[in-house]
Amino acid sequence: MSSKATHFFLFILWLFFLWNSSVFGQTISPETESCLTCHRTVTPGIVADWESSRHSRVSPGEGLKKPFLERRISASGLPDSLQNVVVGCGECHRLRPKRHADTFDHNGMDVHIVVTPEDCGVCHPQEQGQYRQNKMAHARTNLTQNDLYQDFVKAVNGLQAYYDHTLVLHNPEDQTNKLSCYFCHGTRVTVEGMVPRETAFGEMTFPDLSGWPNQGVGRINPDTSKGSCTPCHARHAFSIEVARKPYTCGECHKGPDVLAYKVYEASKMGNIYSSLKEQWDFQAVPWTIGKDFTAPTCATCHMSLLVDEQGNEIAFRSHRMNDRLYVRLFGLPYAHPQPRSPETSAMKNEAGLQLPTNLDGSMVQGPLIDQNEQMKRKQKMQSVCQGCHSTQWVNKHFSDLDHVIRTTNIRTLEATKILQQAWHRGLERGIPQRSNIFDETLEKKWVLSWFFYSNSTRLAAAMAGADYAVFDNGRWQLALNLREMEDWLELKTVADSVGGTERLLP
Amino acid sequence: MSSKATHFFLFILWLFFLWNSSVFGQTISPETESCLTCHRTVTPGIVADWESSRHSRVSPGEGLKKPFLERRISASGLPDSLQNVVVGCGECHRLRPKRHADTFDHNGMDVHIVVTPEDCGVCHPQEQGQYRQNKMAHARTNLTQNDLYQDFVKAVNGLQAYYDHTLVLHNPEDQTNKLSCYFCHGTRVTVEGMVPRETAFGEMTFPDLSGWPNQGVGRINPDTSKGSCTPCHARHAFSIEVARKPYTCGECHKGPDVLAYKVYEASKMGNIYSSLKEQWDFQAVPWTIGKDFTAPTCATCHMSLLVDEQGNEIAFRSHRMNDRLYVRLFGLPYAHPQPRSPETSAMKNEAGLQLPTNLDGSMVQGPLIDQNEQMKRKQKMQSVCQGCHSTQWVNKHFSDLDHVIRTTNIRTLEATKILQQAWHRGLERGIPQRSNIFDETLEKKWVLSWFFYSNSTRLAAAMAGADYAVFDNGRWQLALNLREMEDWLELKTVADSVGGTERLLP
Amino acid sequence: MSSKATHFFLFILWLFFLWNSSVFGQTISPETESCLTCHRTVTPGIVADWESSRHSRVSPGEGLKKPFLERRISASGLPDSLQNVVVGCGECHRLRPKRHADTFDHNGMDVHIVVTPEDCGVCHPQEQGQYRQNKMAHARTNLTQNDLYQDFVKAVNGLQAYYDHTLVLHNPEDQTNKLSCYFCHGTRVTVEGMVPRETAFGEMTFPDLSGWPNQGVGRINPDTSKGSCTPCHARHAFSIEVARKPYTCGECHKGPDVLAYKVYEASKMGNIYSSLKEQWDFQAVPWTIGKDFTAPTCATCHMSLLVDEQGNEIAFRSHRMNDRLYVRLFGLPYAHPQPRSPETSAMKNEAGLQLPTNLDGSMVQGPLIDQNEQMKRKQKMQSVCQGCHSTQWVNKHFSDLDHVIRTTNIRTLEATKILQQAWHRGLERGIPQRSNIFDETLEKKWVLSWFFYSNSTRLAAAMAGADYAVFDNGRWQLALNLREMEDWLELKTVADSVGGTERLLP
Repeated sequence: MSSKATHFFLFILWLFFLWNSSVFGQTISPETESCLTCHRTVTPGIVADWESSRHSRVSPGEGLKKPFLERRISASGLPDSLQNVVVGCGECHRLRPKRHADTFDHNGMDVHIVVTPEDCGVCHPQEQGQYRQNKMAHARTNLTQNDLYQDFVKAVNGLQAYYDHTLVLHNPEDQTNKLSCYFCHGTRVTVEGMVPRETAFGEMTFPDLSGWPNQGVGRINPDTSKGSCTPCHARHAFSIEVARKPYTCGECHKGPDVLAYKVYEASKMGNIYSSLKEQWDFQAVPWTIGKDFTAPTCATCHMSLLVDEQGNEIAFRSHRMNDRLYVRLFGLPYAHPQPRSPETSAMKNEAGLQLPTNLDGSMVQGPLIDQNEQMKRKQKMQSVCQGCHSTQWVNKHFSDLDHVIRTTNIRTLEATKILQQAWHRGLERGIPQRSNIFDETLEKKWVLSWFFYSNSTRLAAAMAGADYAVFDNGRWQLALNLREMEDWLELKTVADSVGGTERLLP
Repeated sequence: MSSKATHFFLFILWLFFLWNSSVFGQTISPETESCLTCHRTVTPGIVADWESSRHSRVSPGEGLKKPFLERRISASGLPDSLQNVVVGCGECHRLRPKRHADTFDHNGMDVHIVVTPEDCGVCHPQEQGQYRQNKMAHARTNLTQNDLYQDFVKAVNGLQAYYDHTLVLHNPEDQTNKLSCYFCHGTRVTVEGMVPRETAFGEMTFPDLSGWPNQGVGRINPDTSKGSCTPCHARHAFSIEVARKPYTCGECHKGPDVLAYKVYEASKMGNIYSSLKEQWDFQAVPWTIGKDFTAPTCATCHMSLLVDEQGNEIAFRSHRMNDRLYVRLFGLPYAHPQPRSPETSAMKNEAGLQLPTNLDGSMVQGPLIDQNEQMKRKQKMQSVCQGCHSTQWVNKHFSDLDHVIRTTNIRTLEATKILQQAWHRGLERGIPQRSNIFDETLEKKWVLSWFFYSNSTRLAAAMAGADYAVFDNGRWQLALNLREMEDWLELKTVADSVGGTERLLP
Repeated sequence: MSSKATHFFLFILWLFFLWNSSVFGQTISPETESCLTCHRTVTPGIVADWESSRHSRVSPGEGLKKPFLERRISASGLPDSLQNVVVGCGECHRLRPKRHADTFDHNGMDVHIVVTPEDCGVCHPQEQGQYRQNKMAHARTNLTQNDLYQDFVKAVNGLQAYYDHTLVLHNPEDQTNKLSCYFCHGTRVTVEGMVPRETAFGEMTFPDLSGWPNQGVGRINPDTSKGSCTPCHARHAFSIEVARKPYTCGECHKGPDVLAYKVYEASKMGNIYSSLKEQWDFQAVPWTIGKDFTAPTCATCHMSLLVDEQGNEIAFRSHRMNDRLYVRLFGLPYAHPQPRSPETSAMKNEAGLQLPTNLDGSMVQGPLIDQNEQMKRKQKMQSVCQGCHSTQWVNKHFSDLDHVIRTTNIRTLEATKILQQAWHRGLERGIPQRSNIFDETLEKKWVLSWFFYSNSTRLAAAMAGADYAVFDNGRWQLALNLREMEDWLELKTVADSVGGTERLLP
């Protein structure tokens, strides 16, 4: 009991030092001090946000001294300038000035606006390297360099003019694309010149950025690098807590096309997270199953460095998202093994479309990972699951997922058959007519089938998301949509046979 | 260090007094005490809720002594009766008894049931005055006094009887309207008479209220005032924390017609809010950017009194919601500048419809704010954005929004052209037939185009809500819906030309 | 003041003991200790989760000593083996070994995998008994033993093959059903044999379970019992906090067919919950209105033992969900009084369908509770509402709900008339053809009408969920859907009359 009392007073003492240490200032570089002088007034939110960050309290030099598993930076060495100062404006916005087309003279300092993965990589090279191997880093170019995907972009964003009783699809404006697909996939940010602007401190001149603002994961930056760290590590607090919470992933993965967040939220895991998260530690590195949390978030299963209470490693940190993924569940007509390369536009199917599968669901050989690699990745994920689930539970869960992949792929195949009939009869113009396959009614309903409903059904199986497999964009909608496709084909055929479209003429 | 220790002990002392002061009772009026005697038993939740409120702890007199920016009441003077007692049942439910048709004798006191903005305005006159200028205060009458909107109400709420192979639309019942549109827009609350009721304390007589219960923002109250404070300041805690959190706005702004809450939730701002809100202060007045919060809620941008850490005012509090809004993004076929007057039913377009735009998207001159006023309001909002974003970021963000307004308005125009064809051919009955323009299939699909999808696309641009601009009721749905409208027109024309509807006869 | 100071120091002392007591170990049985030895390593999450539970800290013997209202176990007596040890692996997984087909020898102990309501009932017999009377316990058999529902299951889960210009509906695979309807409703878990598996401790043999993993509420277990406690009391923490928070109910009640969670979330109650929940006590038993919370969750209104601050009972705990429900709002074409028996497959309407209503909305006499019982249950719920709402408020709220039941039932009736026309004309095959009534387009649109939209409209009325009664799967969608049904009938009739389907032949 008296040792308990000692503990109690040590606890109070510890609280005191904790409070004290957060008050002690760390060394801020003169450059950062000079930025703060004005920006404390002109952008107070940015400064206060940064002040709440670990960057503002710990120098990279100190960070490097931590035990390996607790380390948040992965550099083996650091430039002298970053050893003994905390990481502030003056550090990040002045790195690699020559490489940045957006570098400009700002009150006597060469600063750039857009901090890129190459900049962050000075202290976090391993994360940068992994992210470069991540499909997300190529999210923009995988769209822009794929003719088929460009047809999809056009079908979504292009204005349709009703002219002479027909809808004519126009090319989308760049600004529309920026606010639509490329909002998440990333814009190309270029410097269009320098523009003067009146400020609180007199006239100043700034680079004029096109494709800005944007925080897409595959953004092309003024230093030619690809990607962005801030979609997940929201500036300027760069809080690991924010990155680990599911809302971050949910920014882009919530809609009916990529509803992973919603499925998670409806799952048992999401339930426990929502119920108990205030009692968990989202800042601990490494992250201890059971001690720091009792249910996973997106980051837990897909990215984080996990240990058990004895400190045994359960999974290594990775910023290459598909390290623990053996199949690709969403985005394309048929689920299929993960592609080998994060740059997917080189893939081509038998019909010449830049897809890893043919329209009948058969896989294109070569660009996809083989069974061996699939098994390896599946096992990585399973070892995370097994932190909280028995082996039988986990094995059967994945066998269920494989079942769903197979049966939803059949759903796509049947929908494709109806669409091909429409093309064959000339009711819509598709592959036989070398036309956009996403811009007409039945084509769009075909897209719904796999892009929304099969996707939802699969993700629900992957994360145990109940109704997303049934009535919430799941099998019910798959069945209804297929019936509507069948009806459409019949009605259009009949209309056509009695001279349909001509009757539209006035 | 020793000054640190002093701070620590002062902190402990402060904690002690804080705890102490919340225990010290404030003066409760004898009237309130008498209410509490019974209501502690009959409605324990109401009493406990009130006890958790600031109203139960601070008298208006004390409130008035606070420094200007910290003040939560805006009256310059107060009635004697409210100076030195906390604000309890006996205060609010007994104000202005003669003006209240629902005043009745309750155990010897004249009390009324429905506390209205006029009552709250005794201490909060500035908020009351602003709210009176707020479109929300007129949310009911703007519906009831607009013939076009009444057609919409009928098309939503009226029962459709299938009779003789046709659907016949009936007028909606009042009770249906109450539970549908007027749930948010507000009912008319009137006293239908007095009714006796058996209670725990014997038989008592109460006013019988029609249109009750209701907390719509534009409710018409038994004292003839318009509006209600409780939709946002949920009684009986009237917690500023609740009002400032986005769930309050989300009660009415969540569906596909007004999905601001969902867009916010999916945005970077919503993400940071959800991740870090437990560390923020939602009670501070004024509200300090960076110190009290690091990402905004709805209230932050649209209403709250904001300061920076030096106490400089960034934005003034307003209960007239469109003070910081230059355009109206949702609810109507075309986005347009905010109306001058909160009472919108006086507007009339060229076709005689009570709308600020014509069917071709051109604006009705006069009732909408001019460019000068638009610029002023836009700048007010931008100064809030600039608390956390750079000038270039903010400027380009708003230029993006303007782009989306223009292009979504074009989407409406094209949809309107197809609808007009249907009217022209007599396939549906609309403006040329002087008929309800919301009650038939194509008309309803036309509504989907702007009321759901363009609206979503615009709000996603306004708050950076990713997929709500694309696949979650965004451009994808706009494009699909327009194709379906085109198909519908073709199929109906063909059916009509071969004697369609007659074939339905048995 | 000096008594205040005393209070303060007593408070600090109490904090100390609180902290202390959670450190003191409770007696863990040798069996449980032996499980923990290995499982701490192989399933660290499970062990840590259990360690966070009340089960791991309090023995049933101690639990029984609590005052009646605070008691969490309802047994009048306990087996000796459970008196003085905390409730660990060795306790639950070894109960009633002979009754469990999944009992197997595991390192010298007879353990079973699936802990069932019968096992939990050893300490919680009252809850078990109530749950047995709960429709949820029969959620699986109510589906499997109802031919009509089986047609629905087939229409959702069966693959549709497009063959010879027609969609042919196949019977669904068992594994699909498991991941679809039975994910929530429950699978049948059977032992398929014993399988050896390599483990960290050498080869071991385990029962091979079919229908596993599953946590459906009506699961049939290897001990032949029905139901499962873990869907709501998530293992292995079995936290009452998790069960009381709405996310638990939301796992199954979130989709468009059963969107109670979403309606709640959008309601004033949900708003206050989301805004203030961190300040509430979700662990207190009994649960005090006003003190422990100021707005209800699902559990509050439907299940929990509630008291006021004087300790007066407001409502008794029940695990028979419809104890406070007088009508059944969702799942079936027409809302109707709750069924008498939780086993619903015995009901039969005039057309021989296993439904409590006829297709015209009239009720089948007998199997539904009478007016007297309805009144009793309504009053139970109302007494909960009256914890925070006035009598008039509550009465009028329920009169509104009755109005919505009546009017949405009319919506179903009109939709049914159109469907019957289609059957009559042979455009689809339904009751007259003794065919599946859920598998064709118009039939599915008919289902949307009641299964999604009327349901949403009713739940919105029941919990004041605003837009779920209007534009978010509410009346707007009801009206649009009915128009589309009318159009479909017309177009199909015309197509048919000009020899429609034959034209599909090549």
